[in-house]
Amino acid sequence: MKIMRLGEIGREQPAVMVPSAGGPGRYYSLLPLTQDVDGAFLASGGTGKVRHALEAGLLPELQGAETLRIGPPLARPGSVVGIGMNYAAHAAESGSPPPEVPVVFLKPSNTVAGPFDPAPVPPNSSRYDWEVELGIVIGREAGYLESVREAEDCIAGYVTANDLSEREYQLPGAAGQWTKGKSLPGSTPLGPWLVPADEIDGGNLRLRSWVNGEPRQDSKTSELIFDAATLVHHCSQYMRLEPGDVVLTGTPEGVALSGRFPYLQPGDVVEVEVVGLGRQRLELFRAGESGS
Amino acid sequence: MKIMRLGEIGREQPAVMVPSAGGPGRYYSLLPLTQDVDGAFLASGGTGKVRHALEAGLLPELQGAETLRIGPPLARPGSVVGIGMNYAAHAAESGSPPPEVPVVFLKPSNTVAGPFDPAPVPPNSSRYDWEVELGIVIGREAGYLESVREAEDCIAGYVTANDLSEREYQLPGAAGQWTKGKSLPGSTPLGPWLVPADEIDGGNLRLRSWVNGEPRQDSKTSELIFDAATLVHHCSQYMRLEPGDVVLTGTPEGVALSGRFPYLQPGDVVEVEVVGLGRQRLELFRAGESGS
Repeated sequence: MKIMRLGEIGREQPAVMVPSAGGPGRYYSLLPLTQDVDGAFLASGGTGKVRHALEAGLLPELQGAETLRIGPPLARPGSVVGIGMNYAAHAAESGSPPPEVPVVFLKPSNTVAGPFDPAPVPPNSSRYDWEVELGIVIGREAGYLESVREAEDCIAGYVTANDLSEREYQLPGAAGQWTKGKSLPGSTPLGPWLVPADEIDGGNLRLRSWVNGEPRQDSKTSELIFDAATLVHHCSQYMRLEPGDVVLTGTPEGVALSGRFPYLQPGDVVEVEVVGLGRQRLELFRAGESGS
Repeated sequence: MKIMRLGEIGREQPAVMVPSAGGPGRYYSLLPLTQDVDGAFLASGGTGKVRHALEAGLLPELQGAETLRIGPPLARPGSVVGIGMNYAAHAAESGSPPPEVPVVFLKPSNTVAGPFDPAPVPPNSSRYDWEVELGIVIGREAGYLESVREAEDCIAGYVTANDLSEREYQLPGAAGQWTKGKSLPGSTPLGPWLVPADEIDGGNLRLRSWVNGEPRQDSKTSELIFDAATLVHHCSQYMRLEPGDVVLTGTPEGVALSGRFPYLQPGDVVEVEVVGLGRQRLELFRAGESGS
């Protein structure tokens, strides 16, 4: 069961796609349940409602869904939280030891984009980098949680994410803050699917990325230093996570920052996939020259 | 003309207060113009609409306004952007040279609180600190602005802000990121007033703070290293600022981090004021013990 949002930017309608063996999946509208896949819907047990309505045959089939733009699979979050250097091999390629506590930063929530939207490279950027990540979608408010077990119950589901980062803006950054390299328009494509946490093991998923068809990253979420529930528990000590918020769990080795690959250029095609959560495909263009 | 939001949390109504010489001000409802003081209203020229409606006598007087809670003077922003070490004397007391470029960080937008709301000290915090700041309210989208002059036109008005910061969580932080000390619930009280940019010179305002009635900070925004329009122009190169967003311009010297004053404790009363934008008064309590 893959929860999606289909339609033009700002006018997406909620849907669910049911894969079918040996053919295209079938799409059903979620409008009988909700106007959007947002925090309120997730907090009300939304993913369970979708499952029950599907099983009961209560959702109308969506014709022509394949022709619609695929948006991010949830409405604009209140907060997008990033985690840095959460795979040992990526910390090493970035020139850092593995962190002893989670490294937490924030991205503006207006960086969220669809998984196939044209992706702007900033006008003066020469070090734009990809980062495939497992994204956590929060389904229950998380503040000062007492245990990692409690944190598990706050996870509604997972999404594929790309945490696009401009390294010259990020590092060393002003007073070391990464913000300028992590806030660029379009720099957080999410989706295509939101998969409920009770349907997939977020702790054992393969993550991959490609640039112009050539492989870049290939790791597993089992290599995360701090796993999803540990991150939610940790973040909740410092901020109040809300339903519909997204926590990006960090990227594995294989980014351009390593020095092993060239940075992104306008015209490049970047693909990222968390197996089971769907693959994104971005065509890059120079911001200001078309469409931005 | 002081734009305000009055009422219980999440149910504030928009209002404007007109000070009167020698007596309490008069309050008028903005409901004939808008449901809230949000980005859409500001982007539509909202502050000008308020002025015209006031002059034309189109706004109903609000009786009993003095008895209502005062909320933050604008709806929850999309982004709350913080600027670090933007006064030379504060950079020095923090152990840093003045920055050569603006230091930019983000706060979760759910940290915004009312200017007189009870203020939670985190459960295990022992280094909670105050920071009086001039807050910029964005009135027009700002992305890749070409000039500082353009940035001026993106400023709808100003607010008093307190950028409450937990220094043990902030510094040194994980990989140097300040996020954990800047994201705590209730850590961004705004208001009481939003004053339109064409009614006040944001570049020459006195800022002060007090703890339990004793003076702490006392500076002027003319001492800002990077002024309001310069900050908006700079940030717009790295993120898309939206109407209703808030940029906190940084705090002057006189915080506890300097070593000259004790950190905040539950029971303390913190006041901050930007003269012309109103004074806040927070009573601190330990989160988890009451009201949190």
